[in-house]
Amino acid sequence: MRTIDWVDGAIELVDQTALPDRCDLLRIGTVDELVGAIRRLAVRGAPALGVAGALGVALAVRDEPDPVKAAARLRAARPTAVNLAWAVDAALGHLDGGFEAVLAHALRIRDDDIAACRAMGERGADLVRELTGRDRVRIMTVCNTGGLAAVERGTALGVVQTLHERGQLTEALALETRPLLQGARLTAWELGRMGAPYRLVADSAGPFLLARGYADAVLIGADRIAADGDTANKIGSYALALGAQRAGVPFVVVAPESTLDPATPTGAAIEIEERDEEEVLGVRGVRLAPEGARAANPAFDVTPHDLVTAIVTERRVIRPDLGERP
Amino acid sequence: MRTIDWVDGAIELVDQTALPDRCDLLRIGTVDELVGAIRRLAVRGAPALGVAGALGVALAVRDEPDPVKAAARLRAARPTAVNLAWAVDAALGHLDGGFEAVLAHALRIRDDDIAACRAMGERGADLVRELTGRDRVRIMTVCNTGGLAAVERGTALGVVQTLHERGQLTEALALETRPLLQGARLTAWELGRMGAPYRLVADSAGPFLLARGYADAVLIGADRIAADGDTANKIGSYALALGAQRAGVPFVVVAPESTLDPATPTGAAIEIEERDEEEVLGVRGVRLAPEGARAANPAFDVTPHDLVTAIVTERRVIRPDLGERP
Repeated sequence: MRTIDWVDGAIELVDQTALPDRCDLLRIGTVDELVGAIRRLAVRGAPALGVAGALGVALAVRDEPDPVKAAARLRAARPTAVNLAWAVDAALGHLDGGFEAVLAHALRIRDDDIAACRAMGERGADLVRELTGRDRVRIMTVCNTGGLAAVERGTALGVVQTLHERGQLTEALALETRPLLQGARLTAWELGRMGAPYRLVADSAGPFLLARGYADAVLIGADRIAADGDTANKIGSYALALGAQRAGVPFVVVAPESTLDPATPTGAAIEIEERDEEEVLGVRGVRLAPEGARAANPAFDVTPHDLVTAIVTERRVIRPDLGERP
Repeated sequence: MRTIDWVDGAIELVDQTALPDRCDLLRIGTVDELVGAIRRLAVRGAPALGVAGALGVALAVRDEPDPVKAAARLRAARPTAVNLAWAVDAALGHLDGGFEAVLAHALRIRDDDIAACRAMGERGADLVRELTGRDRVRIMTVCNTGGLAAVERGTALGVVQTLHERGQLTEALALETRPLLQGARLTAWELGRMGAPYRLVADSAGPFLLARGYADAVLIGADRIAADGDTANKIGSYALALGAQRAGVPFVVVAPESTLDPATPTGAAIEIEERDEEEVLGVRGVRLAPEGARAANPAFDVTPHDLVTAIVTERRVIRPDLGERP
């Protein structure tokens, strides 16, 4: 199953808001439908957002009176993940070739993602073995960085999948990832389908379980990596990085080269998406807080590069902890 | 309103599982009912558990054929908070005086708690001003440490209440506190009743918001403080302590002297209650995770004393960061 693809003249994608209860396929035929799907997180995950953005430009060129303006709406649908803006811009670079050229480029981004995730899985699994010195490992992760965040296989969870296929995974500990529970809903669903042993934990338990020796490495994805290695990712990543450093556990970022953003000098310059406070005040339609309650809801955080042991891309391993920069 | 009291021959307590939707009062007339109420967290919070335990011994002496055995059941209802065991043992010390003597001692523990919380509020508010050098402060906290965790006023949230009454509170940032959401349900409810400005945040956002300067101090309660100052408290406290240290923000524990446990040398010796995994797999009756999912659910964590700026009790301020020990 592909999370997102171009099928018979439209985008088809797995509606991630319905998982794990239902696995529904959405057909998206217009830019506005796609912007809506991105905003409500029907499609999410930095690599998948890149593919969605590029395919969206193909829709814009085919159907919109002003494709550049439509592409700008798409580009702005979510601010933190660099892949969306990067892929929209890359697809727009083929505007002169018309719809067919733009679509061909978008499909190349899709195919590149599939290959990149496979390569990251192999390289990441090798690195985990090297960093931990263990034949079998327990991995902690946050949010969803699996096939649902990409096209076929994922980034950080792609490494977990490769470890599992190699017989090297003892257990995955997945943070539930409030407020939208991508860990409890999506990562658990993917780990179950893989047949991988796993347990969910409350987000706040991650650092303490690291202190008590429950995991050998932390693997996360990334939405944007600044020029100095500072890494924006799902809220909760920074707390895990602090816990990993204190526990002496490797903290590894797994992301395609397209996530590296040399135009952003440091993490301080990364825009953090502040999402609707209702996401915190309730869970899947159930109200949690009293009437009148307010919330702050930063969707991402920034992990300073000194807390990052390694960044794994489809091409290389970067070691911020040894002074290397992307 | 008192969270727990002795009224007309029985224990009356606010059923904290029904908040914030309803504020129901339970009447508890037997030890077994009380053990059940403690286990399902109808009554919770270290100081309130102490009062409940002592009043429960009075019920045992009045009604049970073997009061010592009944008291042992009560003592074991929850393992992490020292106050429960301490109060049960203290009440049992008056067994020779019969029901009236035991009840009188339990009511003294209740009255001492009321006075202790008021004293901690004043001393804590003074300390926050001293540590931050600010006239008005923003406070981050986790779980519920307010009146609902004690009898009238609380510990850490009692300090927040005092700051608010003094006109020194700019905002309280309350972590929602998964899995049982004591922050979203109980602390938000109490802050709303106080008329204090506050926002809820996902637990995982706490350390990052500290890094971004959203709070001037972190205040938490405690379930048990070891002889070296290591502090067991609600899961998520340790992550906040790591975030506070990195951000250079004071991390203050507020707890009565009865929470100090000289018999436990270090945090490593504190038993961490592992609660039912269903608490993580769902929220208030709504299933979150796929069928077959498992979870780890440590209810508490331990913050090492080197991360604790100060411990405030009703009698004194202890400064673990300056090498002081309880």
